[in-house]
Amino acid sequence: MSGDKAPGEMLAGTAAARDAYGGEYLLVGREEELKKVAGERGIDLSPFELLHADSVLTMEDDPMSVVRAKSDSSMAVALRALRDGQGDALVSCGNTGALFSGATLLVRRIQGVHRAAIGTILPFEKPTLLMDAGANVTVLPEYLTQFAIMGTAYMKALYGLKSPRVALLNNGAEACKGTPLQTEAYQRLSACPGIRFCGNVEAFDLPFGACDVCVTDGFSGNICLKAYEGLGKYMMKGLKGVFKATPMTKLAYLCVKKQLRAFVSSVDSNQHGGSPILGLNKPVIKAHGSSGAAAFQSAIDQTIRLCQSGVLAGLEEAVAAVTASGGEPGGIGEA
Amino acid sequence: MSGDKAPGEMLAGTAAARDAYGGEYLLVGREEELKKVAGERGIDLSPFELLHADSVLTMEDDPMSVVRAKSDSSMAVALRALRDGQGDALVSCGNTGALFSGATLLVRRIQGVHRAAIGTILPFEKPTLLMDAGANVTVLPEYLTQFAIMGTAYMKALYGLKSPRVALLNNGAEACKGTPLQTEAYQRLSACPGIRFCGNVEAFDLPFGACDVCVTDGFSGNICLKAYEGLGKYMMKGLKGVFKATPMTKLAYLCVKKQLRAFVSSVDSNQHGGSPILGLNKPVIKAHGSSGAAAFQSAIDQTIRLCQSGVLAGLEEAVAAVTASGGEPGGIGEA
Repeated sequence: MSGDKAPGEMLAGTAAARDAYGGEYLLVGREEELKKVAGERGIDLSPFELLHADSVLTMEDDPMSVVRAKSDSSMAVALRALRDGQGDALVSCGNTGALFSGATLLVRRIQGVHRAAIGTILPFEKPTLLMDAGANVTVLPEYLTQFAIMGTAYMKALYGLKSPRVALLNNGAEACKGTPLQTEAYQRLSACPGIRFCGNVEAFDLPFGACDVCVTDGFSGNICLKAYEGLGKYMMKGLKGVFKATPMTKLAYLCVKKQLRAFVSSVDSNQHGGSPILGLNKPVIKAHGSSGAAAFQSAIDQTIRLCQSGVLAGLEEAVAAVTASGGEPGGIGEA
Repeated sequence: MSGDKAPGEMLAGTAAARDAYGGEYLLVGREEELKKVAGERGIDLSPFELLHADSVLTMEDDPMSVVRAKSDSSMAVALRALRDGQGDALVSCGNTGALFSGATLLVRRIQGVHRAAIGTILPFEKPTLLMDAGANVTVLPEYLTQFAIMGTAYMKALYGLKSPRVALLNNGAEACKGTPLQTEAYQRLSACPGIRFCGNVEAFDLPFGACDVCVTDGFSGNICLKAYEGLGKYMMKGLKGVFKATPMTKLAYLCVKKQLRAFVSSVDSNQHGGSPILGLNKPVIKAHGSSGAAAFQSAIDQTIRLCQSGVLAGLEEAVAAVTASGGEPGGIGEA
């Protein structure tokens, strides 16, 4: 209910996903509104189960409202349904902070995981998982080791990589670079079994496929991600100006339209679905707030593949193995 | 001596700067090499004073080597010459960390300034000073207030802005966003006299001229800056591929070449000279390591304008005024 184009585009994307991949779907939201919008769009709701929720959590709501003032929101109702076994995974376009907080409190973390984290695929030369992309603004070095373990499992399962290269986002290549967080994390990552740590990576090199998993605190990760998004938008705007300048440049646009569109869509993160919240007992996927039907369908596709991959069982084992080896202590399961 | 294209391009840029702006120049480096390269390029060294230095500090050298193992390097000799009054300002393409450390230790900070910082102009919709762009990886909230004061003075003096808009780099707009560093800095910036604080800014909005001075710790600032640079390079590479794809797209390139070049050069940070290290007793400008003659000339132009602007006297007054008002304590002059 809470994406920019909800619920119409979400209904259309879900219907298309069901046609393409099959599966069972529980649609959570204001039942009357879902039926009305589906009717207007000619979407047949009979294959879907509906679960009514009175309110909608907005982008302006405080993250904690998902378990407080808005515990009757579609997001809260859906998270409880997931927790109670009414579904295997959840996809939402809603408020990221609320989804993260609600998922951590209701669906809970995997035993031994210090913090769940949001992984976002950077869609440049090679898909690179940036983790954490914004959920945990302050972290401890041992969280970053777990982000590396979870990110490795995710890239193995969803992108078929045999041995994903893990790097630490930093302001230089040398081991001594960064704040005390980075220098300690560097040592821990170097000693951590089960991952392929290839050192520090700078934000300059990430678009060129310097690693497969880039671990970072959520503050720096968010700055990095938004810098890419902002400059990408700025460059696109500038290019539009270039091609619109004169009749001659407009003609030029027609000659490169096909190749230009292919390039632009290759740097569109929507092609990779949504951002998984990793470290939870069940998959929760954050689709972009501005998702249309195609992006939402792509997020559902990703969610199905995530469920089928067994990555969560892999995560629990990977965290447990590292804990058992003494290489890196697990969390105290404080959630 | 220590840029990628030193000393040839530095000599050419300096000769061009002297022709264009006048001024007196002290060239510091291996005298024989300077004379030989100048001869090869047909550059007349007679208007310049030469100061010999035995060694060159490289990008691989430890920053502290400027005052230790390589105290005979051109950078160290030049910094001491600046300190001792043989010059009014210094321009270098050398190792950023070494230049910053050496300048802080030899040229020293302005009375009351906690930390000097590197300001870098982001060259997008409007010139925006990002400060600190990488020198101080860990900072205290009160450093950020001083960065704001110094950045405001710089943008007033060099870009003629009457009341530069200062923002804090953060992961969201709300005052509660970020780590404890950002939340405390937000409060201090809001209460700080002499600056026009307009709240938090996200890395997504910086290319669109959301503020004139963006203050941040050097770690996040560096991540942000390098993300812009890296994505810019990636987009340019992708565009090259688009235009080189077929004979038709090659033709299209010819039709947009002029407009495209204008756009590309508008996002080239070299047009704004180098990055000033602000907070020192004398101007020290870090030109890009890859600078050619034109970029080095531009950095000299900026340095001359910086000297003529009286911005340093302005900085000292501004820091002192805020200290006196009790709005924000100055440093203890520990340098």
